[in-house]
Amino acid sequence: MNEEALQALLEQIAAGTTSPSAGVARLRRLPFEDLGFARLDHHRRLRQGAAEVILGQGKTPAQVAAIARAASGEPAGVPGNVLVTRATEAMYEAVLAALPEAVWHPLPRAITVERVPRTRGHGTVVVVAAGTSDLSVAEEAALTADMLGGPVETIWDCGVAGLHRLLAEVERLQRARAIVVAAGMEGALPSVVGGLVAAPVIAVPTSVGYGTSWGGMAALLGMLNSCASNVAVVNIDNGFGAGFVAASINRG
Amino acid sequence: MNEEALQALLEQIAAGTTSPSAGVARLRRLPFEDLGFARLDHHRRLRQGAAEVILGQGKTPAQVAAIARAASGEPAGVPGNVLVTRATEAMYEAVLAALPEAVWHPLPRAITVERVPRTRGHGTVVVVAAGTSDLSVAEEAALTADMLGGPVETIWDCGVAGLHRLLAEVERLQRARAIVVAAGMEGALPSVVGGLVAAPVIAVPTSVGYGTSWGGMAALLGMLNSCASNVAVVNIDNGFGAGFVAASINRG
Amino acid sequence: MNEEALQALLEQIAAGTTSPSAGVARLRRLPFEDLGFARLDHHRRLRQGAAEVILGQGKTPAQVAAIARAASGEPAGVPGNVLVTRATEAMYEAVLAALPEAVWHPLPRAITVERVPRTRGHGTVVVVAAGTSDLSVAEEAALTADMLGGPVETIWDCGVAGLHRLLAEVERLQRARAIVVAAGMEGALPSVVGGLVAAPVIAVPTSVGYGTSWGGMAALLGMLNSCASNVAVVNIDNGFGAGFVAASINRG
Amino acid sequence: MNEEALQALLEQIAAGTTSPSAGVARLRRLPFEDLGFARLDHHRRLRQGAAEVILGQGKTPAQVAAIARAASGEPAGVPGNVLVTRATEAMYEAVLAALPEAVWHPLPRAITVERVPRTRGHGTVVVVAAGTSDLSVAEEAALTADMLGGPVETIWDCGVAGLHRLLAEVERLQRARAIVVAAGMEGALPSVVGGLVAAPVIAVPTSVGYGTSWGGMAALLGMLNSCASNVAVVNIDNGFGAGFVAASINRG
Amino acid sequence: MNEEALQALLEQIAAGTTSPSAGVARLRRLPFEDLGFARLDHHRRLRQGAAEVILGQGKTPAQVAAIARAASGEPAGVPGNVLVTRATEAMYEAVLAALPEAVWHPLPRAITVERVPRTRGHGTVVVVAAGTSDLSVAEEAALTADMLGGPVETIWDCGVAGLHRLLAEVERLQRARAIVVAAGMEGALPSVVGGLVAAPVIAVPTSVGYGTSWGGMAALLGMLNSCASNVAVVNIDNGFGAGFVAASINRG
Amino acid sequence: MNEEALQALLEQIAAGTTSPSAGVARLRRLPFEDLGFARLDHHRRLRQGAAEVILGQGKTPAQVAAIARAASGEPAGVPGNVLVTRATEAMYEAVLAALPEAVWHPLPRAITVERVPRTRGHGTVVVVAAGTSDLSVAEEAALTADMLGGPVETIWDCGVAGLHRLLAEVERLQRARAIVVAAGMEGALPSVVGGLVAAPVIAVPTSVGYGTSWGGMAALLGMLNSCASNVAVVNIDNGFGAGFVAASINRG
Amino acid sequence: MNEEALQALLEQIAAGTTSPSAGVARLRRLPFEDLGFARLDHHRRLRQGAAEVILGQGKTPAQVAAIARAASGEPAGVPGNVLVTRATEAMYEAVLAALPEAVWHPLPRAITVERVPRTRGHGTVVVVAAGTSDLSVAEEAALTADMLGGPVETIWDCGVAGLHRLLAEVERLQRARAIVVAAGMEGALPSVVGGLVAAPVIAVPTSVGYGTSWGGMAALLGMLNSCASNVAVVNIDNGFGAGFVAASINRG
Amino acid sequence: MNEEALQALLEQIAAGTTSPSAGVARLRRLPFEDLGFARLDHHRRLRQGAAEVILGQGKTPAQVAAIARAASGEPAGVPGNVLVTRATEAMYEAVLAALPEAVWHPLPRAITVERVPRTRGHGTVVVVAAGTSDLSVAEEAALTADMLGGPVETIWDCGVAGLHRLLAEVERLQRARAIVVAAGMEGALPSVVGGLVAAPVIAVPTSVGYGTSWGGMAALLGMLNSCASNVAVVNIDNGFGAGFVAASINRG
Repeated sequence: MNEEALQALLEQIAAGTTSPSAGVARLRRLPFEDLGFARLDHHRRLRQGAAEVILGQGKTPAQVAAIARAASGEPAGVPGNVLVTRATEAMYEAVLAALPEAVWHPLPRAITVERVPRTRGHGTVVVVAAGTSDLSVAEEAALTADMLGGPVETIWDCGVAGLHRLLAEVERLQRARAIVVAAGMEGALPSVVGGLVAAPVIAVPTSVGYGTSWGGMAALLGMLNSCASNVAVVNIDNGFGAGFVAASINRG
Repeated sequence: MNEEALQALLEQIAAGTTSPSAGVARLRRLPFEDLGFARLDHHRRLRQGAAEVILGQGKTPAQVAAIARAASGEPAGVPGNVLVTRATEAMYEAVLAALPEAVWHPLPRAITVERVPRTRGHGTVVVVAAGTSDLSVAEEAALTADMLGGPVETIWDCGVAGLHRLLAEVERLQRARAIVVAAGMEGALPSVVGGLVAAPVIAVPTSVGYGTSWGGMAALLGMLNSCASNVAVVNIDNGFGAGFVAASINRG
Repeated sequence: MNEEALQALLEQIAAGTTSPSAGVARLRRLPFEDLGFARLDHHRRLRQGAAEVILGQGKTPAQVAAIARAASGEPAGVPGNVLVTRATEAMYEAVLAALPEAVWHPLPRAITVERVPRTRGHGTVVVVAAGTSDLSVAEEAALTADMLGGPVETIWDCGVAGLHRLLAEVERLQRARAIVVAAGMEGALPSVVGGLVAAPVIAVPTSVGYGTSWGGMAALLGMLNSCASNVAVVNIDNGFGAGFVAASINRG
Repeated sequence: MNEEALQALLEQIAAGTTSPSAGVARLRRLPFEDLGFARLDHHRRLRQGAAEVILGQGKTPAQVAAIARAASGEPAGVPGNVLVTRATEAMYEAVLAALPEAVWHPLPRAITVERVPRTRGHGTVVVVAAGTSDLSVAEEAALTADMLGGPVETIWDCGVAGLHRLLAEVERLQRARAIVVAAGMEGALPSVVGGLVAAPVIAVPTSVGYGTSWGGMAALLGMLNSCASNVAVVNIDNGFGAGFVAASINRG
Repeated sequence: MNEEALQALLEQIAAGTTSPSAGVARLRRLPFEDLGFARLDHHRRLRQGAAEVILGQGKTPAQVAAIARAASGEPAGVPGNVLVTRATEAMYEAVLAALPEAVWHPLPRAITVERVPRTRGHGTVVVVAAGTSDLSVAEEAALTADMLGGPVETIWDCGVAGLHRLLAEVERLQRARAIVVAAGMEGALPSVVGGLVAAPVIAVPTSVGYGTSWGGMAALLGMLNSCASNVAVVNIDNGFGAGFVAASINRG
Repeated sequence: MNEEALQALLEQIAAGTTSPSAGVARLRRLPFEDLGFARLDHHRRLRQGAAEVILGQGKTPAQVAAIARAASGEPAGVPGNVLVTRATEAMYEAVLAALPEAVWHPLPRAITVERVPRTRGHGTVVVVAAGTSDLSVAEEAALTADMLGGPVETIWDCGVAGLHRLLAEVERLQRARAIVVAAGMEGALPSVVGGLVAAPVIAVPTSVGYGTSWGGMAALLGMLNSCASNVAVVNIDNGFGAGFVAASINRG
Repeated sequence: MNEEALQALLEQIAAGTTSPSAGVARLRRLPFEDLGFARLDHHRRLRQGAAEVILGQGKTPAQVAAIARAASGEPAGVPGNVLVTRATEAMYEAVLAALPEAVWHPLPRAITVERVPRTRGHGTVVVVAAGTSDLSVAEEAALTADMLGGPVETIWDCGVAGLHRLLAEVERLQRARAIVVAAGMEGALPSVVGGLVAAPVIAVPTSVGYGTSWGGMAALLGMLNSCASNVAVVNIDNGFGAGFVAASINRG
Repeated sequence: MNEEALQALLEQIAAGTTSPSAGVARLRRLPFEDLGFARLDHHRRLRQGAAEVILGQGKTPAQVAAIARAASGEPAGVPGNVLVTRATEAMYEAVLAALPEAVWHPLPRAITVERVPRTRGHGTVVVVAAGTSDLSVAEEAALTADMLGGPVETIWDCGVAGLHRLLAEVERLQRARAIVVAAGMEGALPSVVGGLVAAPVIAVPTSVGYGTSWGGMAALLGMLNSCASNVAVVNIDNGFGAGFVAASINRG
């Protein structure tokens, strides 16, 4: 209930067309049901065409398909885009049966449905991956950012032990409005990238490595202790989160 | 704003003594300012006479004294009790200057001000300490429970390596409505107590020990992994929290 | 052996109807076999009709069925209720063959046998789950509390990132005598719930999440460090323990 | 060496005014000495008037004063602003003797020197602190953001256990272009704030708490596992880093 | 080479029946090949009839059978006993084909071959297990101690939450010369047992439990921090080591 | 109350010289007050002359002196020996004033009072220290073992990086009935010693080292994972516990 | 672009056969494409015949075969050796189809292709393994060192609990120019070896063990805290890294 | 006792000038006292003039001075160099009184005494420090390497966030025979340096940083997980160890 609706209700009461008791009944649950932030999602979607995001993990294919269908505005709602993360091929088949526009992205294991133009930000998001093993996480970040606030450029395979590959891309890095860096092992790449640019760097540690990599903890600690000041970090393997934050920066 | 006040406001609008716009102005911030839970504290205090609790740590003596004075209802409010935890003697002197009823409790390092009868629960809270080194934490739990929902009985110095001391107290333990057990080192006492009683046991690990006691972590883990089903745990050295939960059980 | 029985025995000895040696034989094992706490289980069951609990994990279906049969009072004992936790469907089939009243609860993976009315507490236990992935743990807590000290109400799917869903339930939360909150990831929900109510909150961290969720450790630490004072914690995924503690509070 | 200078050098060689060997000598170290990013700092400062930042910790007052003087453009350079973090009062006195504009900020323990207008971003940075103990970290974030890309608004003392205080500020939060949230203990505030807004949230855990707060680790883990997707994290107590990232977002 | 052999060699040299060069050749490798401790194994076996122990894990059935055969003195050596730990049934079949006396112990997953009487100690080793899930580790300890320095008595299923079961066995515990206690979860049992006896208690944590049991770490920490002074600890699930130490005490 | 006393009591009841009610009164607390283990301490001391042990840490000098006086049998009890561990010189002065036989041991920071001959075991305890920094822990172990079950021999300064120093002592090691090995850093010494002897080795990690020694954790883990089978471990820096276990072995 | 090529280009410009603008175009990317260190690999390979190393893990057999083919100089490049680590048999078959010289090493799971003589160092690398379970890691180290800077000698199965086996090899150890020591469990072997030699010891912890071996962490900590000064460490199970460092020492 | 001495002894026995019993007496302790490795120290010092190293930490000034005097060959031995690490100024004064050549090195807190020329290796050791806070550790490494196997060159203040400073030193790095890299925070510098050179890199993490730097653990993990293959690691802050290993490489 927005301010206009509230004004209208009170005018009806003033006019006697609604009784005070009926007004109390409608207003009683106001604090919880009609809070500004509860309306946020709708505002955002109308304004930005942003995709609804569904976490596939832990849901059945049928559940995912049903939620995706509703989120896309079917059968009779406002059309919208959908992104399903951590999906399976079985989920894709279920969604595809319901929504023929559905597309399967094998590396990031994601499904997208595009019914309206993707949201664009004011600049470019650049996603960087240290090694080939970091690609599935980096691709998830890139796809997420592209659905929610792209466009996105990618720079693959430029770990710090072969510095020349990274230095060859300095110009593109310096043009970015937000940068995502995915790296495993010692997680040093965000520090090096951060030292080369003025934009914020969202670092995402990957669980790549063995021994004391501790499933990504070594990379995470490296990133949290970065000697570059413009680095913030998301959870291990959380490519979706990194892409989401980068998109929110690029849209802002 | 409760339901009666809302009814009254809408009736004024219906009667024309308040304009719809003025109603909108009053209702606009309703979701945040007048939620039921914001009024909770007052309701609870009136109903229970429960003490206001002030965490002394990190505040200046003057700040503590000022907050304590207001919480006690001075100069002209409803009288109430006050409990200051993790206090210093300097804080006590400042509070004493403002409130002559203030009492200093050296072992739990706490200040109390009693201006109304303490809240009583429906039964008894029993606080158990494994060793003498656990006493300051156990005393904090006992004082807290006594201020907020006593009465409290205490059983000191009955660690599991001298089982007969504990077994001699089985009867008192079995009469309790809620039990707090403070223990350091291996933290085994709550399991043993839990096996002897039907009441809930709130276990509080203390940072007593050395080597791999890890500042109380060994005791904490022991308590979380208790083979007795009626044990729940609070943070290391958090005697206040344990006493608070026990009081809330005894009042319920 | 209670005090009356002991008095009777000694009077028989005084009367010469029992010899001192026969008395020694009966009393020899008294400290261990007839301790007050050993009698507790029987007392509790007669008074409360409380269910016997069997941990299925690590037992064979045949073992579970045999224990369940005995616990239920078959073939010729006092009838009682039974709760098997961490069970499998094979266990269910074995129990069902022995006890036709057996019911399978698929989400919490539990078996119940009800031969007497369930124990009721003095109020209501409310069980809250942050997300759908926390449901199996939350359902285990709810079922346990309902068997041992209900009735139980449940509030599902109200994580802190969508606060309005929780706020809509404030009234039910404030009516509860004990609250269980199951949450994974950052484990913030018990703090928010704790701030809304006066009753004790038993927090149960779930192993939901990835990366640094560390199989529930992040949620556990969040709950132990809760800024709400009325929160106590049980082990990760220990829905049974949380429900057990809540029931013991509600019965007390 | 930029492209124009390179063109000029080669033309001198073509013209014979520079020998090929002299050209080789100049170009030999080109890869390392004259990379574009080495010039970055100067470009940024000229374009943005951004302050130079000096980490006081581990330096002597005299060292800090000398660096601050040079960074401010004294005696004869381009005037610039200076921010000294983790400073001491002795450092302040040394800087003040050299630069009369120096200002001491006691809570964040920082020194500022303003000789040119502060850099402004395209929107507002909002800095939120959960409790009073988080203030020194939050103030460092606020001061940093204000020096490098403000303006900044602050919201103090709105922890999750008293939700109404936070909800009262929803509007200001939703207007922000970047939000910094400082919290200790369970670190739940960024999740709640993140669920209320569309802007990126930079979470900074503080070392506030005891027991299993592990010097801020509990809060850090809570933030990394946030169920809100728009949260990124910096190191424990790293208010400077959080403010720096927020400023870089607001300037972008 | 013992002192007598050395004396004899030098006398042969003095007598000229052995040349100095031949003496050098024999003595050259003396420091490494003929140290007293290299002969230890043979001495011990002759004196004690102690079993040779083979760690099955990581070996092929054929390898295990070959080593067991040699260790048992086949085809023409001194007969001896053999204990294979962490074995598989396939290993058992291979050993059985070579040594018909081989016996399979399913719970501790061990193979024994007895060709001489087992070594006996001066008293009794008692092995205690907290719960049924600790039995495979406890059985490994019992079998090991019995092969290397028994006799062994066992006390199963007497966890600290049901203290009366343990107290009923105090007499047997107090008669033991060495005690092994296997327990998982909070690992409190060794503290309780240690408080009841004067003999050394060898505690072996088991990986039983879930959540924060951390694969036995909680139990290990509990045992290391035992408030009973007569408790020493071996690695998680290392029933073999516990039994070995207990046997070495009982033989000593 | 042993069986004979119980028989006597019942016979008095049978004979009418004790009433059944008086019998109930005596028997009521039997389970807890008169268990065998409650009398243990007295039995042990009478039989062994073993010293009473007082943990000085956390007590005042006056408390320590009072307990020591009583433990020594003053003013009119059975004379006994006393060992105070983790003591201060102030404690020593207080004890000395009460008991002129008191002796101060500066390196292990312990006080002893000898009023009866020390308990001797059946063999010798050997205490080994890896480096000079491990001496205070090793000395505590040696003094404890010597008070409770010596005699004790010591071997100092024979770390594994200078193997010849250890090898020179093989003979003494092989003669020992129980061995204590104190080592910090990598904690490898118990494995090497364990491989040289048949007796049980009690390993005590010391908090010597820096960096990843983690206050003794590296040494503790090394000892728990020892490839020698006859090694059991006590807590970090727990020289007292190691000596206590070794003495209990040597007495057994 | 090496110095000669640069000199040639500038001389063409001086001679007018290349225009300055064309020179700028070629030189523009010089910093990144033609950095000295980018040429390193080629220099090294020409000078040393060193093998190119391919990490098999995470690649498809087809990818591995394609890279191996190119790295070996096929079809028309300079012939070179190839080492594929963490390979599978399927990878071997793919490589063998492309390069008939390919050899499969089952224990270290590696593939080698030799088309030129292996690089030799100035001395010998000795690789030591504590137990048979450490062999696959030790073999990887030995093969790597032999491909990149051997020759290599190996000493297997000489753990610290059977010291005489190691002491018998002192002479070979003292002749080595670099030593690799692979050990699991407590990781004590590098300390003992380090104390016997003057050469650098590269220690590689293996994930052998159970309980608190923590997948090799115990061994890693033991090695980092070695009391021998000539020990440096690589990651858990990183036989390749250990061999690589040893080879680089032996070549140096 | 080397082979010649043994031959001579046996010839004396053969000649009758030494009795067999006297020979036994001399040979009895041979395995331990006269092992080849026990003579190593003397051999090395004579051949190399290498300094004796004394760990100051945990010793008194008088002890340090006495050991230093003996190690330097005073009063009448072979002159030698001495290095005291982790020293205090009081130790320096004591050493200076005994040995006037003693020099105090304030940053690495070390004392050196040079009485013979320092040992030189076959090339150069380069020591690199990431930041100024890493200097004391780096200086300790440089001084150690210079005393035991220099010469040493140093490169200070070239962290990865300002890459151009490091790249300017590539040539010196590529000339080194062994490189030590000291870095705190994320510890990324060794990876970057390792990617630029063929020589072995000894990485030493420093305890510089805050929050999750965990006293150097983040840097240590970063270095262990380095994506550069030529990196080996020593303990946190162990500049001495890094310099020692580098010197042993340079001498080899």
